[in-house]
Amino acid sequence: MMALMDLVTEIAIPVSAIIGIIFSLVQWYIVSKVKISGNQGLESNANDPLMEEGINDQQIITKVTDIQNAISTGASSFLFTEYKYVGMFMTLFAVLIFLFLGSVEGFSMKPQKCTYTKDAMCKPALANAAFSTVSFLLGAITSLVSGYFGMKIATYANARTTMEARKSVGKAFIVAFRSGAVMGFLLAANGLLVLYITINLFKIYYGNDWEGLFEAITGYGLGGSSMALFGRVGGGIYTKAADVGADLVGKVEKNIPEDDPRNPAVIADNVGDNVGDIAGMGSDLFGSYAESSCAALVVASISSFGMEHDFTAMCYPLLISSVGIIICLITTLFATDIFEVKEMKEIEPALKMQLIISTALMTVGIAIVSFLALPSSFTIFNFGAQKVVKNYELFLCVAVGLWAGLIIGFITEYYTSNAYSPVQDVADSCRTGAATNVIFGLALGYKSVIIPIFAIAISIFISFSIAAMYGIAVAALGMLSTIATGLAIDAYGPISDNAGGIAEMAGMSSTIRERTDALDSAGNTTAAIGKGFAIGSAALVSLALFGAFVSRAAISTVDVLTPKVFIGLIVGAMLPYWFSAMTMKSVGSAALKMVEEVRRQFIEIPGLMEGTGKPDYDSCVKISTDASIREMIPPGALVMLTPLIVGTLFGVETLSGVLAGALVSGVQIAISASNTGGAWDNAKKYIEAGVSEHARSLGPKGSDAHKAAVIGDTVGDPLKDTSGPSLNILIKLMAVESLVFAPFFATHGGILFKLF
Amino acid sequence: MMALMDLVTEIAIPVSAIIGIIFSLVQWYIVSKVKISGNQGLESNANDPLMEEGINDQQIITKVTDIQNAISTGASSFLFTEYKYVGMFMTLFAVLIFLFLGSVEGFSMKPQKCTYTKDAMCKPALANAAFSTVSFLLGAITSLVSGYFGMKIATYANARTTMEARKSVGKAFIVAFRSGAVMGFLLAANGLLVLYITINLFKIYYGNDWEGLFEAITGYGLGGSSMALFGRVGGGIYTKAADVGADLVGKVEKNIPEDDPRNPAVIADNVGDNVGDIAGMGSDLFGSYAESSCAALVVASISSFGMEHDFTAMCYPLLISSVGIIICLITTLFATDIFEVKEMKEIEPALKMQLIISTALMTVGIAIVSFLALPSSFTIFNFGAQKVVKNYELFLCVAVGLWAGLIIGFITEYYTSNAYSPVQDVADSCRTGAATNVIFGLALGYKSVIIPIFAIAISIFISFSIAAMYGIAVAALGMLSTIATGLAIDAYGPISDNAGGIAEMAGMSSTIRERTDALDSAGNTTAAIGKGFAIGSAALVSLALFGAFVSRAAISTVDVLTPKVFIGLIVGAMLPYWFSAMTMKSVGSAALKMVEEVRRQFIEIPGLMEGTGKPDYDSCVKISTDASIREMIPPGALVMLTPLIVGTLFGVETLSGVLAGALVSGVQIAISASNTGGAWDNAKKYIEAGVSEHARSLGPKGSDAHKAAVIGDTVGDPLKDTSGPSLNILIKLMAVESLVFAPFFATHGGILFKLF
Repeated sequence: MMALMDLVTEIAIPVSAIIGIIFSLVQWYIVSKVKISGNQGLESNANDPLMEEGINDQQIITKVTDIQNAISTGASSFLFTEYKYVGMFMTLFAVLIFLFLGSVEGFSMKPQKCTYTKDAMCKPALANAAFSTVSFLLGAITSLVSGYFGMKIATYANARTTMEARKSVGKAFIVAFRSGAVMGFLLAANGLLVLYITINLFKIYYGNDWEGLFEAITGYGLGGSSMALFGRVGGGIYTKAADVGADLVGKVEKNIPEDDPRNPAVIADNVGDNVGDIAGMGSDLFGSYAESSCAALVVASISSFGMEHDFTAMCYPLLISSVGIIICLITTLFATDIFEVKEMKEIEPALKMQLIISTALMTVGIAIVSFLALPSSFTIFNFGAQKVVKNYELFLCVAVGLWAGLIIGFITEYYTSNAYSPVQDVADSCRTGAATNVIFGLALGYKSVIIPIFAIAISIFISFSIAAMYGIAVAALGMLSTIATGLAIDAYGPISDNAGGIAEMAGMSSTIRERTDALDSAGNTTAAIGKGFAIGSAALVSLALFGAFVSRAAISTVDVLTPKVFIGLIVGAMLPYWFSAMTMKSVGSAALKMVEEVRRQFIEIPGLMEGTGKPDYDSCVKISTDASIREMIPPGALVMLTPLIVGTLFGVETLSGVLAGALVSGVQIAISASNTGGAWDNAKKYIEAGVSEHARSLGPKGSDAHKAAVIGDTVGDPLKDTSGPSLNILIKLMAVESLVFAPFFATHGGILFKLF
Repeated sequence: MMALMDLVTEIAIPVSAIIGIIFSLVQWYIVSKVKISGNQGLESNANDPLMEEGINDQQIITKVTDIQNAISTGASSFLFTEYKYVGMFMTLFAVLIFLFLGSVEGFSMKPQKCTYTKDAMCKPALANAAFSTVSFLLGAITSLVSGYFGMKIATYANARTTMEARKSVGKAFIVAFRSGAVMGFLLAANGLLVLYITINLFKIYYGNDWEGLFEAITGYGLGGSSMALFGRVGGGIYTKAADVGADLVGKVEKNIPEDDPRNPAVIADNVGDNVGDIAGMGSDLFGSYAESSCAALVVASISSFGMEHDFTAMCYPLLISSVGIIICLITTLFATDIFEVKEMKEIEPALKMQLIISTALMTVGIAIVSFLALPSSFTIFNFGAQKVVKNYELFLCVAVGLWAGLIIGFITEYYTSNAYSPVQDVADSCRTGAATNVIFGLALGYKSVIIPIFAIAISIFISFSIAAMYGIAVAALGMLSTIATGLAIDAYGPISDNAGGIAEMAGMSSTIRERTDALDSAGNTTAAIGKGFAIGSAALVSLALFGAFVSRAAISTVDVLTPKVFIGLIVGAMLPYWFSAMTMKSVGSAALKMVEEVRRQFIEIPGLMEGTGKPDYDSCVKISTDASIREMIPPGALVMLTPLIVGTLFGVETLSGVLAGALVSGVQIAISASNTGGAWDNAKKYIEAGVSEHARSLGPKGSDAHKAAVIGDTVGDPLKDTSGPSLNILIKLMAVESLVFAPFFATHGGILFKLF
């Protein structure tokens, strides 16, 4: 029976992953049928009965192609530069991992006694070091590939969305959404497949030593997250330096619209959306996924079914993800084939329906997997003791994570969508100027933390009480099980944003711009929801990783009432502030440089303002690139080195404190920063769109209230797209790094206290 | 020997307190010799050889008197209204304390077995309930009196400072400084005296039951802090609603200077300085002082010398404060009699010297007290175990707190004074508008957290390692031992601010305004330093109270790796955000109402802008009063009810988590909010003053960069004067409340978990 189940498991996981990849290719194929260049495109468009707008001007289409090429080239060239530097760093860090972990048993090749499986011999620490290094590199490469492909798809889809917007808002929506789905499914499936193959390959060497096997696998999570850190920070600085710089001169000083082709920073701004919001976000969520899987696996390896080598039960986390891919596939069909978006106001409900449908279906999926894959009763290692868990209880853990994600998503929507009173209040405060706008926006961000934290706390309490750290890890997986759908609606946002930019730059009519604006406004909200998911899951993942670290470092309590832990706690709670200070200052300085360059061009290039001179886009792209590469290093180093330094000098107790402190403090700033920024952005859009009586009383564009709103939006840019989302990674990465280095810290750590 | 020492102690403490009070009266007498009304004043001024400015116009002097009366009446009337509402709340809360604590043993009058002193009988829980209630009320009344007298002195001194500014900047400085000293010494001495008398009176009933005695005394800290909470929040909302409202219309829309008498909100603004920065700050620091004394006493009562009833050793915390008063007295003479401030640029160094001198002298003072009062070796209760401590080690604990305070003070100065690059960078970022100013300011605030947190962490590590929670408590006392000087230079700020306002409103010459501006600018920095002290000491005090709570609730570990504690931790870390959201929103809404009223007056009152019409100051005072009374209730209730709800429903473990989480998260926001606000204020002043080439390139007043700086300053107002400083009280108050209610929670708490 168990053998049969194992066979099913061994087939089901890779098959689901491959189905996900095929589905993603199909979506890509459908998107690719939208032509943007050449005569055929024109002809077919002209014959299309749905074509409402008569803009078939060859010149405009050539412009669209040019702009798309410029964005795509800029994004590729930035990512290559980024990857070059990060590659060097990763190589160095890989060497460090090998040396640190190898030194645990003095680079001995001799097998060692297992920690948890009594009377059995496990592989030598040196092997764990080598395999951890390999899985680290694999995680990093998978993350890199995920980000890169996401960017490629987005830059491929942006112009196609613009072209379809000429026909109708529904057509444009479907292209943007399908492209998002390409990224979502590719990433989810690819992550699962690589992890699954790696486990199977490692098993050839490790055999029955599952402790060592899954310890080595945690490197995968570290690799994924390290890459994500640089992706988020570098991309975040890039995109916001360009965005802030472009807005400050364009909108505020020159009074030209957003994405106006006369603005020299406009290409850099659009490139930024792709490298920051797409590639960065992709790497980030991949990292969360990889880490929660690794956390669940490493904890499971010392559970009763892990000890008994029940492969199917062991693969429970992967099975959840496999089912997630299939469920998300079905969910996608609801948006692409079953319901059709016809009007602007249907866009946001359609995207929200995606979340609700996938969550509802997934609840059933989780129940099935839990009953089939898990023994009806098993034990989980709980800091020194064994805890009995039933399979239906574990179902509860996953489900609570899944639904907490949905709640966080909707609360985020409530606080960042301009359909509700919080954002409208912020917009209203623009009447008295930028200062009250900023005060109200900050207050909104702080307030928006309350319910998500309660949701996270309740999930933690339930899953922790039921199944200790395994419960937390699978709750995180539950929240991430609909990642394909989450990423699809998330990636949809920047694609629409770009589509609007291309329409503006190519000089298309205002009707088309209105349509892309409607797409974009919904995208702002889904982006905020995506960030909510990312933060919520990061909180759970970090706690699970933290728990795994503590188990592996052989600590059984982390007592706040000891000086070592308490100082860790308070310093850890400070790290997100230090990190945010760095990233915000980086965006600020880079934006100042951008402003100077844009101003210079407006002064020095004759006819630029009149539209006869051609701006030098490349110099702005270069400023963003240089700034982000240079500025991503200090915050990156802060995050990567803190666990190493604390663990080595102060030992595992203080490090535990640091992790807990950074987690509970970072999650608050991350949520409030993201939501404040999202709210300011949509408050501005609310005034611009002027849909209600109230909104019109604040507008139109260019009014004092609108100017105040633009200032808020600009302040929010680095908060919501640089600092806020990078903080997820800060808390996850420090935890997973501690986990990977735990054997070293447990053996050689705390030098400072040993000396005195 | 011990009896002799005890006699010395019993004399030394009240004598020091009385010396402090006499000194304060002497300073008040000297200030009172400056006359502001009547003919004698005029004559004597005219004959004064130091009189540089010839403004002896009877009309101006009458104006000064009128304005001073208006401010004083407004402040008194607000405080009376505030105290009326808070009084009702306090009475209710006192009943609650009595009922909750009385219920611990079912309101039985029977003596109970002592917890720590073996085989001895202690007083019944009902007696502890009654005495705790009494000491709670005493603490609240002492805090109220401190705040009220502070306000009275400040409103008495402001006009006198203005009058002296006609003679010279040095004369004005000395009046403002002496008035600050009146408040500082009165508060420090009064707090000590009341506490000392209370202990001695309670001892009549308690006799040898020191456990019960010092448990009951903790109510004093709770009372002080509860009062401080409402003082800070209510005063903070009052002052910033008026300030923001006045600036938004006056400076931004009407382009009239600060404190212009035509602005209807100007009196409310000046009243605000007195009720917020003076009365609120006074209550806050008194609360910290009372709490750290109580925390030290309650922990000491179960130490070896506490068990042995060594009265002098027991009074060690009070002796430290007594010596502090004498040392601060000597320090004050350096500013008032030994060195003389003659030029504007000498003001800031003179104030900084006060800090350095008092810290250096105090180090010696602490050493002497430690060697005389403490046994050379004793044991301290450390969560279930006894820990041996030497007297020189305890000296180290106090000294480390004292010096950490100085470091925090200087770091705060570095980040908020415009003499250094951080504020200058923020000013520079105003070139590109308000958005970059806000981004840079927020980043500065985040960054300014780093070193203070390390200073606090190191103090905690050292004092915690040496003497557990007693170490932390005395470290906090060390930081607060120079409270008289700290408060003197702190109160000096708002007095100078008011003096400038009065000069402007009375139409005095620009030379006088320049002098008061120089006083005020130094005052901004000392206010920031004062807040740094308040926050740093609050962090230590809360930890000590937290430790005392844990001991009293009979918990020996607070393990982060349990669901009950962890959810407390994450929810606790969220509370400062919730609280800040409330207070910031309150200021924002109240400011909006103020703006509407001021705008209405400018439209409806004929000749107001031209200076011929008379503004209706009272309606603005009423708006601030009503708003602050109404809006202080929700945040107050959040802080006061959280420990009660969590303790009763979830029990002491979760409550421990909440306290630790709120502490480590709140201290960061408090520091960053205060410093961000201080930096924005001084960046604006930097541009206005135009002292350097760089500053002039950004100015003058009214330039685009200056307008951007004004927006930053306005955003910073609620951060630095409402949310930030109130957070100190949040963390302290929740901890002291938990401590007072600990017996109840330990007996009846955690209902929810008991039910399921």
